[in-house]
Amino acid sequence: MAARTEPGGVVALCGGVGGAKLAHGLARVVPAGTLSLIVNTGDDFAHLGLHVSPDLDTVTYTLAGLADKRRGWGRAGEGWRFMAALEALGGPAWFRLGDGDLALHVWRTHRLRGGATLSEVTAEVTERLGVGARLLPMSDDAVRTVVETDAGPLAFQDYFVRRACAPRVSGFRFRGAETARPAPGVLAALADHGLRAVVICPSNPFLSVDPILAVPGMRAAVRATAAPVVAVSPIVGGRALKGPAAKIMGELGLAVSAATVAEHYAGLIDGFVVDSADADAVLGLPAIALPTVMRTARDRARLARAVLRFAARLPRRRAAA
Amino acid sequence: MAARTEPGGVVALCGGVGGAKLAHGLARVVPAGTLSLIVNTGDDFAHLGLHVSPDLDTVTYTLAGLADKRRGWGRAGEGWRFMAALEALGGPAWFRLGDGDLALHVWRTHRLRGGATLSEVTAEVTERLGVGARLLPMSDDAVRTVVETDAGPLAFQDYFVRRACAPRVSGFRFRGAETARPAPGVLAALADHGLRAVVICPSNPFLSVDPILAVPGMRAAVRATAAPVVAVSPIVGGRALKGPAAKIMGELGLAVSAATVAEHYAGLIDGFVVDSADADAVLGLPAIALPTVMRTARDRARLARAVLRFAARLPRRRAAA
Repeated sequence: MAARTEPGGVVALCGGVGGAKLAHGLARVVPAGTLSLIVNTGDDFAHLGLHVSPDLDTVTYTLAGLADKRRGWGRAGEGWRFMAALEALGGPAWFRLGDGDLALHVWRTHRLRGGATLSEVTAEVTERLGVGARLLPMSDDAVRTVVETDAGPLAFQDYFVRRACAPRVSGFRFRGAETARPAPGVLAALADHGLRAVVICPSNPFLSVDPILAVPGMRAAVRATAAPVVAVSPIVGGRALKGPAAKIMGELGLAVSAATVAEHYAGLIDGFVVDSADADAVLGLPAIALPTVMRTARDRARLARAVLRFAARLPRRRAAA
Repeated sequence: MAARTEPGGVVALCGGVGGAKLAHGLARVVPAGTLSLIVNTGDDFAHLGLHVSPDLDTVTYTLAGLADKRRGWGRAGEGWRFMAALEALGGPAWFRLGDGDLALHVWRTHRLRGGATLSEVTAEVTERLGVGARLLPMSDDAVRTVVETDAGPLAFQDYFVRRACAPRVSGFRFRGAETARPAPGVLAALADHGLRAVVICPSNPFLSVDPILAVPGMRAAVRATAAPVVAVSPIVGGRALKGPAAKIMGELGLAVSAATVAEHYAGLIDGFVVDSADADAVLGLPAIALPTVMRTARDRARLARAVLRFAARLPRRRAAA
């Protein structure tokens, strides 16, 4: 248990389901109060006048033990009276909001309209729900992922939910990123000299991690961090476990492989974790092959521990990059 | 069944539960498309950033057959996951919003923010829910009932829900009424020369009907209407069936009686309907005693028919007033 005795905190960058799982694992294996999660908000959008933050919510519900495990989003034991009544009124049904989940959207929107920042609301909500890790939205400013497709530029949720990732992707834009600032605490978390590791979770590199890195100052802060930076591949055996990462890589003319992900993060990371299925991947940087598929809470903790052990052994390469 | 063969439409002024019941009865006994309901919006308020219209909703749900009969507000078969989750987040719990009910508030608020008027949203919603009557908010402008009490001036929902009508009442103000305009269709409905009756439902005179009459032009329009105007007493045997009407009358130094209600509407009505329990009430205008307590849908229709028959026999007195 070498990792457990290491001093210092851990920062993880994460997006949706896969990222939330590893974030949950990290939260289970590091001391309380030492984990900071920088979460993608490029998927955020206004729906029915409500501010919905899908990735923040997935991470929050996962770490609070409230997440629905089968569905992959929203709360367990959810009810759907709101959606049924909304449809009866002629409201839009393409984006599903559960009855309990709605409380978070309504409350957050109300607090934001009252002048609170997304960071402040996130801190309040996670505190209330007993989440031990510190959740940091990548920015309190609006950054909105736009997917360039053969059906034209699409707002993220339009691409992801309404069109179920069917359009062919040619690129991405992160609207608002140029002028966005990292949320309070984000740069300081990465600048912490006692930091033990920075982990890029197995989230979609294009849709979950790149929006975070698109916020001015983020990429430099990751490069400058004192800790080893480790990414975990979301591609396992040439496939994405969930979501459109593999489809998108194919559409962009990239090989659907862990190596492509490692290349995507070149210059930013010191080490790379691939799945045991990809143990023979040829990578230009230190790597380790581990079972990365997280089916249970124990899998999450086991992977988190292994990733931190790997990070602890890594030489610093970025100084030369 | 003389009332059924009468030509022309019916207009009813109504507020909460008692009013909604008679409105429902009227909707059952008049031909489809001939009933217009002018509904109090003085109880409307913004809660969690949502526009809540309690009286419009009670009337809508009652006429759509969706109302919870025991609780007296909201929808039957309602769920409470939203409230439970909201409380867990530290949100306010004093005003209960059911999971299905929320759809109406969220959808209405979204449409209003998009530029629709309350009348337009009400028309869409009632059409969608198969409500045959025409529901007209008294005004599309904000009129907000303020209750003057020994605890100071209180916003209506603060008085009515949060403080459960406990403070002692000394008067009422209808904030915004001076500059409010009757909603489109309201004055035209009352000016219809073919009108058969105007019914003031057994709603709270101070909190449900007076806000309607406080909108400039409303009182004159009721006085000028070609049809007989009939009010139904919400006071039965010296008590209010529901709500704070009797308590308020006592606090205002008024006798808690049907006669006090008739006096309240003096100059505005041609006839008055009291409950059989108040058959000996001494009133200065034509009156009839009927069983006014509506326990079943049949009670509602029976009372509606009797009220319309009574109206049909009334001499016009207001011309002299």
